[in-house]
Amino acid sequence: MIKRLLLTVSLLLPLAPAVAQVPSPTALGRQAFPRIEKDGRVSFQLKAPDASGLTVSLGKDYVMSRDADGVWSAVTEPQVEGFHYYSLKVGGLSFTDPATHAYYGGGRWSSAVEVPENPAAAAFYTPRQGVPQGAVRSVRFYSRVCGEYRRMYVYTPAEYEQNPGKRYPVLYLQHGGGEDETGWIYQGFADVILDNLVADGKAVPMIIVMNSGVAHRVDNPEEDAFDAMMTEDVIPLVDKRFRTIADRDHRAVAGLSWGAKQAYDLGLGHRDLFSAVGGFSGIIVIGEFDVRNPGFRDPEKFAAAYDGVFRDAKWFNDNYHLLFISTGEAEGSLLSQMSALLKERGIGNVYYASPKTAHEWLSWRRSLYEFAPRLFKW
Amino acid sequence: MIKRLLLTVSLLLPLAPAVAQVPSPTALGRQAFPRIEKDGRVSFQLKAPDASGLTVSLGKDYVMSRDADGVWSAVTEPQVEGFHYYSLKVGGLSFTDPATHAYYGGGRWSSAVEVPENPAAAAFYTPRQGVPQGAVRSVRFYSRVCGEYRRMYVYTPAEYEQNPGKRYPVLYLQHGGGEDETGWIYQGFADVILDNLVADGKAVPMIIVMNSGVAHRVDNPEEDAFDAMMTEDVIPLVDKRFRTIADRDHRAVAGLSWGAKQAYDLGLGHRDLFSAVGGFSGIIVIGEFDVRNPGFRDPEKFAAAYDGVFRDAKWFNDNYHLLFISTGEAEGSLLSQMSALLKERGIGNVYYASPKTAHEWLSWRRSLYEFAPRLFKW
Repeated sequence: MIKRLLLTVSLLLPLAPAVAQVPSPTALGRQAFPRIEKDGRVSFQLKAPDASGLTVSLGKDYVMSRDADGVWSAVTEPQVEGFHYYSLKVGGLSFTDPATHAYYGGGRWSSAVEVPENPAAAAFYTPRQGVPQGAVRSVRFYSRVCGEYRRMYVYTPAEYEQNPGKRYPVLYLQHGGGEDETGWIYQGFADVILDNLVADGKAVPMIIVMNSGVAHRVDNPEEDAFDAMMTEDVIPLVDKRFRTIADRDHRAVAGLSWGAKQAYDLGLGHRDLFSAVGGFSGIIVIGEFDVRNPGFRDPEKFAAAYDGVFRDAKWFNDNYHLLFISTGEAEGSLLSQMSALLKERGIGNVYYASPKTAHEWLSWRRSLYEFAPRLFKW
Repeated sequence: MIKRLLLTVSLLLPLAPAVAQVPSPTALGRQAFPRIEKDGRVSFQLKAPDASGLTVSLGKDYVMSRDADGVWSAVTEPQVEGFHYYSLKVGGLSFTDPATHAYYGGGRWSSAVEVPENPAAAAFYTPRQGVPQGAVRSVRFYSRVCGEYRRMYVYTPAEYEQNPGKRYPVLYLQHGGGEDETGWIYQGFADVILDNLVADGKAVPMIIVMNSGVAHRVDNPEEDAFDAMMTEDVIPLVDKRFRTIADRDHRAVAGLSWGAKQAYDLGLGHRDLFSAVGGFSGIIVIGEFDVRNPGFRDPEKFAAAYDGVFRDAKWFNDNYHLLFISTGEAEGSLLSQMSALLKERGIGNVYYASPKTAHEWLSWRRSLYEFAPRLFKW
């Protein structure tokens, strides 16, 4: 699943300033396509003599052309660096391209390309020989709230097993809409990012817990159960099963896009449980309003939000160690506005914009890289 | 990825002797299709008003029919119980159905159905509340033999972290052709099977190491590097990183189908490293011959195989604690013949045939369930 050929590329070209023509790091095994061209265009090629017509859908649709041997091909416009889901359209339906590893996105297992950035920039999410590796564990658990077995991924830092008497802080980390608990490992390389940060002395060793954000109450399947599942099932289980420091000072939550809203809701809604919150490419919702609506600025609504967590800015700043807001530059200014508005209201926050990137995983890898070193040093 | 709805089914119907009409346990989220009918037929339904034609390929091709609303459907013939890959054929190409979780098989991420057996029979690979869970860890490593970063899955038993002074035996476990290191967890439920066996006192707690069997030498990409990668990279790393008992008496290898041949080659070819070997639905090859060919029976070739491991039957029986051979009953008698022939030659072995099942994962789950309790009790 994580065939990180990217890594091989960066090992071979440690000093290359620009990206060469390479198979997408997401391509299976020895597949030559999808292929990333030097200018960031993506080439697709697929032998299918019997196909009646093929389209690649990557941001927009590109109709593929067929040669005399039945090989179909298309080249996209240049893509911004980073990770992009795509699909093939065939016979009126949209499908995963079997040429790449599968990534859970868009509510299904999808194909994806990665337009590599230069290896020096990619170093923070690239494994290095000699860096001690944490473990990514797949943990089954029974959720009483949801009435079903579920799975979470739990990252424990490399030193976790060498220090059987030591306890660790915990970051709860959420994926985006249409994704699941696999996203932060397979698309986001969260484990590699933390291994490298810890090895470089930049981040405190921490446990990271990744759950699917899709949760429904067993007694009312139409009701969203994420908050209850996290607070009633997941956090108690993690504190029991792992050597955590089980207090709010040592518990943070972050998420991306839809998961950012979940992180804000969880982290700001449960001040007894969390003392740090990160939202990557996602919004805070005050009442029914986000920053795009004047209602968001209504002082009364603002003061009432999350049971009054923002009412007294000094209280907030004294009690929340970190409120972190990030975005990809190509996403526009919405989150910059949100950060500024919170600051106007006295609510301290750290804002980060990932250079050039879009609403995709390279923005979120960088966001984690900026966010994690700030955690648990208070 | 492993949305084991099967588990929910078995919790709801603990005493039901027959299978009800249910969504395939492999179906995503709340998908109603693919649906398993009571008689083992599989129903497919897919809304695609613009599709020009659809075929389901599950063992054989079933052309789907379209109703007035653009809903396509097909029902297969009854399928044997167990796990079956399938694909959709559309516009001259074969694709993964986005309605199911994705399983790596056939050299790509594939869709699959599971025809559930009755819950009592399925109990051994079904999580039970109260059973302590081992951890499945994703471990990145750099293979010097292959010149690339790779991933292995390592299962450590539940008690592993409660006993920081205790060391454990290791089973190396291989997937089949076209599959990868994810197979034994996602298709095979190896972690659940061992958790249950250990909790019931039937198996010794052990570490299980799962690697992709596809390996090529960095200095000669056409040369198969599985043996070298395992002996030079993987085994030393596992013995260093985990609390293993690093001797042949506490090291076993098994595999299925193509992976069974790899297990025989590794386990019989390295008598200094392994003392137990299991082959599920796969053959031993003597020279260039397997049991289907009279050359396999040639006494000289037999005696020369694997550097003479079979030359002295008494030596073999004294030094190999277990040679385990299994098959699915629906696969025919080939492996029964192989077991019998080895016994004729004095080579002790344990033979197991999984009732009714085919060359698929239910046979292999059962094989592991029969194999693992026999390990490491010598």
